[in-house]
Amino acid sequence: MRRYRVGILGATGLVGQRLLERLEGHPWFETAALGASERSAGRPYGEAVRWALDGEPPPDPAGLPVHACEPRAFEGCDLVLSGLDAESGRRIEPRFVEAGHAVVSNCSAHRSLPDVPVVVPEVNASHLDLIEAQRRRTGRGFLVTNPNCSVTGLVLALAPLHRAFVARRAVVVTLQALSGAGLEGPRGLEIVDNVIPFIPGEEEKIEAETGKILGTVAGGAVRGARLEISAHCHRVGTIDGHLAALSVELESGPAPAEAAEALRAFRGESEGLGLPSAPERPVVVIEGPDRPQPRRDRLAGGGMSVVVGRIRPCPVLGLRLELLAHNAVRGAAGGTLLNAELLVARGLVGGGRGA
Amino acid sequence: MRRYRVGILGATGLVGQRLLERLEGHPWFETAALGASERSAGRPYGEAVRWALDGEPPPDPAGLPVHACEPRAFEGCDLVLSGLDAESGRRIEPRFVEAGHAVVSNCSAHRSLPDVPVVVPEVNASHLDLIEAQRRRTGRGFLVTNPNCSVTGLVLALAPLHRAFVARRAVVVTLQALSGAGLEGPRGLEIVDNVIPFIPGEEEKIEAETGKILGTVAGGAVRGARLEISAHCHRVGTIDGHLAALSVELESGPAPAEAAEALRAFRGESEGLGLPSAPERPVVVIEGPDRPQPRRDRLAGGGMSVVVGRIRPCPVLGLRLELLAHNAVRGAAGGTLLNAELLVARGLVGGGRGA
Amino acid sequence: MRRYRVGILGATGLVGQRLLERLEGHPWFETAALGASERSAGRPYGEAVRWALDGEPPPDPAGLPVHACEPRAFEGCDLVLSGLDAESGRRIEPRFVEAGHAVVSNCSAHRSLPDVPVVVPEVNASHLDLIEAQRRRTGRGFLVTNPNCSVTGLVLALAPLHRAFVARRAVVVTLQALSGAGLEGPRGLEIVDNVIPFIPGEEEKIEAETGKILGTVAGGAVRGARLEISAHCHRVGTIDGHLAALSVELESGPAPAEAAEALRAFRGESEGLGLPSAPERPVVVIEGPDRPQPRRDRLAGGGMSVVVGRIRPCPVLGLRLELLAHNAVRGAAGGTLLNAELLVARGLVGGGRGA
Amino acid sequence: MRRYRVGILGATGLVGQRLLERLEGHPWFETAALGASERSAGRPYGEAVRWALDGEPPPDPAGLPVHACEPRAFEGCDLVLSGLDAESGRRIEPRFVEAGHAVVSNCSAHRSLPDVPVVVPEVNASHLDLIEAQRRRTGRGFLVTNPNCSVTGLVLALAPLHRAFVARRAVVVTLQALSGAGLEGPRGLEIVDNVIPFIPGEEEKIEAETGKILGTVAGGAVRGARLEISAHCHRVGTIDGHLAALSVELESGPAPAEAAEALRAFRGESEGLGLPSAPERPVVVIEGPDRPQPRRDRLAGGGMSVVVGRIRPCPVLGLRLELLAHNAVRGAAGGTLLNAELLVARGLVGGGRGA
Repeated sequence: MRRYRVGILGATGLVGQRLLERLEGHPWFETAALGASERSAGRPYGEAVRWALDGEPPPDPAGLPVHACEPRAFEGCDLVLSGLDAESGRRIEPRFVEAGHAVVSNCSAHRSLPDVPVVVPEVNASHLDLIEAQRRRTGRGFLVTNPNCSVTGLVLALAPLHRAFVARRAVVVTLQALSGAGLEGPRGLEIVDNVIPFIPGEEEKIEAETGKILGTVAGGAVRGARLEISAHCHRVGTIDGHLAALSVELESGPAPAEAAEALRAFRGESEGLGLPSAPERPVVVIEGPDRPQPRRDRLAGGGMSVVVGRIRPCPVLGLRLELLAHNAVRGAAGGTLLNAELLVARGLVGGGRGA
Repeated sequence: MRRYRVGILGATGLVGQRLLERLEGHPWFETAALGASERSAGRPYGEAVRWALDGEPPPDPAGLPVHACEPRAFEGCDLVLSGLDAESGRRIEPRFVEAGHAVVSNCSAHRSLPDVPVVVPEVNASHLDLIEAQRRRTGRGFLVTNPNCSVTGLVLALAPLHRAFVARRAVVVTLQALSGAGLEGPRGLEIVDNVIPFIPGEEEKIEAETGKILGTVAGGAVRGARLEISAHCHRVGTIDGHLAALSVELESGPAPAEAAEALRAFRGESEGLGLPSAPERPVVVIEGPDRPQPRRDRLAGGGMSVVVGRIRPCPVLGLRLELLAHNAVRGAAGGTLLNAELLVARGLVGGGRGA
Repeated sequence: MRRYRVGILGATGLVGQRLLERLEGHPWFETAALGASERSAGRPYGEAVRWALDGEPPPDPAGLPVHACEPRAFEGCDLVLSGLDAESGRRIEPRFVEAGHAVVSNCSAHRSLPDVPVVVPEVNASHLDLIEAQRRRTGRGFLVTNPNCSVTGLVLALAPLHRAFVARRAVVVTLQALSGAGLEGPRGLEIVDNVIPFIPGEEEKIEAETGKILGTVAGGAVRGARLEISAHCHRVGTIDGHLAALSVELESGPAPAEAAEALRAFRGESEGLGLPSAPERPVVVIEGPDRPQPRRDRLAGGGMSVVVGRIRPCPVLGLRLELLAHNAVRGAAGGTLLNAELLVARGLVGGGRGA
Repeated sequence: MRRYRVGILGATGLVGQRLLERLEGHPWFETAALGASERSAGRPYGEAVRWALDGEPPPDPAGLPVHACEPRAFEGCDLVLSGLDAESGRRIEPRFVEAGHAVVSNCSAHRSLPDVPVVVPEVNASHLDLIEAQRRRTGRGFLVTNPNCSVTGLVLALAPLHRAFVARRAVVVTLQALSGAGLEGPRGLEIVDNVIPFIPGEEEKIEAETGKILGTVAGGAVRGARLEISAHCHRVGTIDGHLAALSVELESGPAPAEAAEALRAFRGESEGLGLPSAPERPVVVIEGPDRPQPRRDRLAGGGMSVVVGRIRPCPVLGLRLELLAHNAVRGAAGGTLLNAELLVARGLVGGGRGA
């Protein structure tokens, strides 16, 4: 079986570095082209990148040249993955779509467009139906996104409850890791012995994207779920893993044990497709009175599972729990890659796998 | 004016150390007797204590002998302050009350007794009326407590809103500092690059004590406020300062600006009494999109003010905000001392100040 | 090929947990018996342990019963690995040796005995010759140890320099991680925003063990290397990875580039034996002006390599550099296991592998 | 007594903020003019500054206008304090000297000039004699600097030993706090659970400045002390307080108790001048096997004392110890201010104090 050729936009950023790392030894994909800012263009990746992950850059892509993010440099790619920041993505991604590329993006810039699906495969793989509508606007190329890093975990925990009991209102308070802020996050001087109770734009993203993902596609657009969300976001001094405390009102008011059972029994829309990055269980219910904890539980399912614990009654909204997802894996690079795999499995890119 | 002679129970613990530190140079009080476990008894304080605060123990009390926590060793004291842990306090404090002492305690053991007031002077100084009822049970001595360290900040922020708009339901999520756990708190290995989403007994205390403090005294007991609270508690790797995200439903649904105005305008029940530990403003409303922050704002009002910021609408409960209080100052030793000062100002200890 | 049956002493401690984790899927060994304190004895391991590593205990050993550390409970074992603390090890390990066991220990209690080898396989595998002398004292059983966690990295970095240029004097200053202190290490309150410039007994261990390991065996004892070491030890708030700054005086005064070449060219005494835990390169020389860094480089060689960087002239002693070793892997459980593998490869345990 | 009018260059930087904070309520000085980058010029300080210290900017200077760093805006100042970074200082400070200002600077740019004194008042107040030589070059204005933040503590600890026993060689390994890197220091993502074993230019500064400060003035220049220093510098995740491990060779080889006595007995050259920022004791010898510790001891002497502990023999160089100094107080703003006070006391600025 030939491997799909993958291009990466924003390859020197933190999400780009994670994408490269995850593509090492990927069974379906090979890294074929790297794009970054004009400043980096023309240099070998290993020189251009300020590597921020453990160890050193993987040797193969380290030798690839970095291009400016121009479609012509990505011509032979079957797929383009984007780790661009919001501002660059807003400008650059449409040019790739216009040039006919299938763009799978972690960037927030276009998530609110009605015909751009925001996809968590286990939850709303069916939203890929929007691609048809989107192509009526864009031609051959299209754009699929994954949600904000704090939304991914939230919808994975909410979806089983919403399906089984219908969620109506939720208060979610996040304790988010430093890697979620990328390479330009808070200084050590700002975060040691401290918490920053604010992340620009984050509460709005959570409140907007959650309803869209849990909604249904109709007439070429998503009808959002009727679900009021209130988010309070904090940056804490952890490296990886966004923790969240959730109080939720469910229409049929299940007991905690029923909720736990629904979470455990959850099978995603994308299961059975054999996606290489999919975890065995998208939702892990953890025992222990003081779990999940970021450092100890963020690698559940290779960082691709959400971990839910402390499921108990909430005196105000009915049910409360703690949830944890690895923001840099499931919430960013891993989520983008899983979406790319879903597109391949659905026959939406290249000439079809195994052709 | 003579100074009141103060004894300290649990003097070698973290709260006890803070009490000693705050009594240095106190205008009304002098440290007269120190009590700790049998193991420490008989040694000079400076030797018995494993000093955990900055620098070294203050020289004067360092030379005092440590006694076992027996009433006879505290006979000349006008007041006994207790920094005991729950288990020791449950056993020891009643013996001091029985022996006729006025006990002002930070310990949680007896807070739930109907005739024991849980006092935050600015909020419910009037609850000292319970002392009369309590004395019918205990004789001459009595016990006054301050609430749990995470409750103090919460009620200081809730009280002005409750008075002005009537609070009905609240979801509060705390990010609590390490010093709140005392000398036996989490190991570095447990908390660096981590969050522990559980503090034993804490959520129950918040849910129980808040209503009691905001309630009214009638017939020798407190009738709790009709206020549903849901608490999610986390231990984070900060040294001092409990931060909390609060969503609250208020009957008359004020706009954020009205809520801010009520917080700013708040004058406590105890103002005007000249209590030495009272901050100029019990509630400080802070501007800035990313405040309050534990390290930067915990010393507001010398650590005795609660700092409130990010007052904004909540899509679920109506109003949301962030609040911060210094757990080890306002939430523990400073709160205990403020209660002691309140008792003096009300003429409830000794022969009356300056009398 | 049958697998060797391995018993673990101190199985519920931090080193014991790491040993269990590393034995999962080990090609030569299987976990056969677990020993811990009387308090844990009789319970399944999964219940007795307070698991402190990521995730949850591996399922297979979680079901094994915990025994008291008595030789009769380890009768079928080919090898006994000890993760005991110094005090328990001093008492317990000799009883296992007496009972005829081959004991491979991480414990410091007996490292200073003249006939007990302190082994880092790449550096002094030949010290296993001491076993013969030791057996004259003990009978059939014997004890082999690995050095203190901060010594292992130091000798791996010093050995190539000592071999090539003869080391005479060294000042080493360590910045040691929290996991090195085991489950009873500093509280979060003691280490956040702080450094503790003292680790009990550590400087003495470094100064004593380094010379022994770099020495030569003669007449049933080790003649230590003539090498003066001065150690200053610090506990810092990192999770894993002991960093050290080293200034060293070498007899033949090499230029930094020559020293780097000697480090890069180093081949260990144990290479070619196919030990499963041996890293490809025991010493990794890293480029980059600000490396090695604990979080980013501690997993080099799966945590079994020492990483050396910033090799430069020292105005006082001639040469200086930074070195990093994963204290919990190479410096403890991984080092113990590597020694066990070395014993097997040398035919010193059981009936001989595959025999 | 009139107060001296003080201007501040680099007022919006971290050192500038500390200077402003320390000038609040200063008995001799009042803040008269503030200078920062062109970008900030023209705005009130309170708006222009990104305040990074605790709480909020002091109200009085918050209302002052920020000027560009041009001498004409500082005309009425008796003294100009500079918190500029190296690059800006190199460009700007000479223009102030040329315009006749007495410039007291924390900036490293001109410390190596032979006629610019690098002063720690207790150690080398006599180096102010260089001013006369300097003025032959510059006219009426002149420049006095304090050393690098890690040097100040080192020379305060070395000076008493050097005076009493003559220091010849020293290996010093620093563990430096985040505030030492200013507002552009390491990201949280770089320093949590990590150490960075490199600070650009720092080792060179320590090696160069220490000898100059301990040297003697002769013929309009400093003859450096004959003292070989080797420095290894690390950035660790503490907020304030540079810790250092020192091994030192002293000609007359004192026992640790003699060294401790010399440190305790140290009286600085500037003592008796009544400088408001001078600590009671410039060197504090601390007992306790695990001290000094940054968070617990950095505020000794209001942050202006160096704290020395663990004085013990060094097997390699003779004597070793740990020392701690508050980098942001004694090592920067407080040191600059102390130098300014020294100039006043020596009658080297304005019309003379009390005139």
